Amino acid sequence: MRDSIRVLILGSGQMAREIVRVLQSKRGVAVVGVCDRRPDLDAAGIAGIMGLDADVDVQVESDLATAIQRVQPDIAIQATRSHLVEVWPDIRLLLSGGVSVISIAEEMAFPSCSSKAIARQMHDVALANGAVVLGTGVNPGFVMDLLVIVLSGVCAHVDSISATRANDLSPYGPSVLKAQGVGMTPDAFDRGLRDGSISGHIGFRQSMHMVAHALGWTIDTIEETREPIVSTVRRETPHVVVEPGCVAGCLHRAVAYRNGAQVITLTHPQQVHPALEGETTADRIEIRGVPNIQFEGCPEIPGGQATAALAVNVIPRVLSASPGLHTMADLPVPAALSADVRKFIQPGVVAPDG
Amino acid sequence: MRDSIRVLILGSGQMAREIVRVLQSKRGVAVVGVCDRRPDLDAAGIAGIMGLDADVDVQVESDLATAIQRVQPDIAIQATRSHLVEVWPDIRLLLSGGVSVISIAEEMAFPSCSSKAIARQMHDVALANGAVVLGTGVNPGFVMDLLVIVLSGVCAHVDSISATRANDLSPYGPSVLKAQGVGMTPDAFDRGLRDGSISGHIGFRQSMHMVAHALGWTIDTIEETREPIVSTVRRETPHVVVEPGCVAGCLHRAVAYRNGAQVITLTHPQQVHPALEGETTADRIEIRGVPNIQFEGCPEIPGGQATAALAVNVIPRVLSASPGLHTMADLPVPAALSADVRKFIQPGVVAPDG
Repeated sequence: MRDSIRVLILGSGQMAREIVRVLQSKRGVAVVGVCDRRPDLDAAGIAGIMGLDADVDVQVESDLATAIQRVQPDIAIQATRSHLVEVWPDIRLLLSGGVSVISIAEEMAFPSCSSKAIARQMHDVALANGAVVLGTGVNPGFVMDLLVIVLSGVCAHVDSISATRANDLSPYGPSVLKAQGVGMTPDAFDRGLRDGSISGHIGFRQSMHMVAHALGWTIDTIEETREPIVSTVRRETPHVVVEPGCVAGCLHRAVAYRNGAQVITLTHPQQVHPALEGETTADRIEIRGVPNIQFEGCPEIPGGQATAALAVNVIPRVLSASPGLHTMADLPVPAALSADVRKFIQPGVVAPDG
Repeated sequence: MRDSIRVLILGSGQMAREIVRVLQSKRGVAVVGVCDRRPDLDAAGIAGIMGLDADVDVQVESDLATAIQRVQPDIAIQATRSHLVEVWPDIRLLLSGGVSVISIAEEMAFPSCSSKAIARQMHDVALANGAVVLGTGVNPGFVMDLLVIVLSGVCAHVDSISATRANDLSPYGPSVLKAQGVGMTPDAFDRGLRDGSISGHIGFRQSMHMVAHALGWTIDTIEETREPIVSTVRRETPHVVVEPGCVAGCLHRAVAYRNGAQVITLTHPQQVHPALEGETTADRIEIRGVPNIQFEGCPEIPGGQATAALAVNVIPRVLSASPGLHTMADLPVPAALSADVRKFIQPGVVAPDG
């Protein structure tokens, strides 16, 4: 069998560390490098917080070009930022070096939503260098798009789709909490909405376009609303305290229209400790069509764990795919890899004696 | 754009007719032939019950080789029998003629469960003739395998899987009802189990092996039990009457063991009109692992409609796949095709401007 799959991790935040933990639990795959630029930690410090031994196992580099050259990765997993313009320079460098990329940047789930020009360039650079690039994550990338698409497969016809994800933000780190306005006063939340520092969920447009693309729909317009979820009780996580009267999270909704009709409705109330006010968490998908379909998971799929698992479970899908830009909807589905990861590369046609 | 995709239908039973109805609702795809051998109906009669105009649109043939030659199909959809040995001769003829095949035969969901030799031959004949062959259907093919695999994709680790499908057999035709013992006395049911005329659900082994293959598990043994569901009330469908004290359906269970541990448990109570005794119908999937995942759809995905929709929705997946034998788990996921079916062929890499 080939040598272990060599993985370079971009980022050293909470998600990067979770991805490393999942990789360390798998056979046939090795974390060979971490690339991050942090003012607060040197290479040994970064290796330390990631549970890696910098001297023996892993190169920690602040410069990506150097990391690619020294580490010679088969694949890179990017867990740095959310927006396409932020992550594209590193992705371009990786693809140009023939390194395939799995990114958990939300806007990478369907890059053409953010910039058709960058998406086109990304596809061309990947093609030219025989590399593959894929965006994944729990949402966008799974709950409100891939799972919706899969379920639509049993429908002869679909009129409309709605999906709700009511989740618990408590396990998340500071950057996610800040983007949801958690801990702020309602006034500060409103200012944050206006100045763009509070984004709510990033990914509705990506999910909607992924679903529409899979079904062959053209979306005319998407409307979004964001409201603060004001807490009546004190809520606390390792990274934030929400006083009564302050904001526990953001209720974000989006509606997509096709030929004037409301065809996709996505509702995503995200807050810390919703159970403290009796709110249950759940993922719910409803398809109106022939036949009607509804599925519900309660509690919700835990986002951080799911994103980390997906980023690892898609490795063989990416290494088996044709070069270029892919989405979760055009590769074979991910699965929990419970054997040597190398065994899942290029099964292509299923082994008839499998 | 290319001419409409030419579809040959094998069979003229309830599922074949439902598949034709779905095909007729789509653009870019045409039913150009039906092949069946029926003592009760001539060609015009078969065309009639299928809602087709035999003179103008469609060739009705009793001989498959003749049908292939006259109709020149791009793809055949097989809706005839359940078992691999029954459907393999027609599949071989089709593949040998370069015609790709979608089969709803339950054992086609993972053919090597029934015969590794036939599965290997099927793969080789498909490869040699540049054709693709795929088994699909609601179950096996979707609820207890593809959907389980997709959901496992968010898990870093899976200990065990259980799935329950409690469904309503009322919409089904005589052959399905007979295989479940519906309408029989409990004694006749027991005799049917012993002589093999009552099969219960066909597909547990296929679903289990599809899941195990996707996760990289090796299954040691599978144990199955079948019990009659005895009705206390009168139940009636267009095809059967169940008197009180007689059998409304079959409760079929299967357990798969790996390294001595129970890793997959599938439970499938199938009966007519379960609501008459207050039974709800549902699909339920539970994964014990990291994280735990549970999803439930209530009522259950309607089997007949779903199987017909899947058989049509996978057409572009099959026509875009590499030659050979595939399963639902190694192709991109099906989606409800809401535009010209030809547009979904070989998207391969997602259009960045999609």
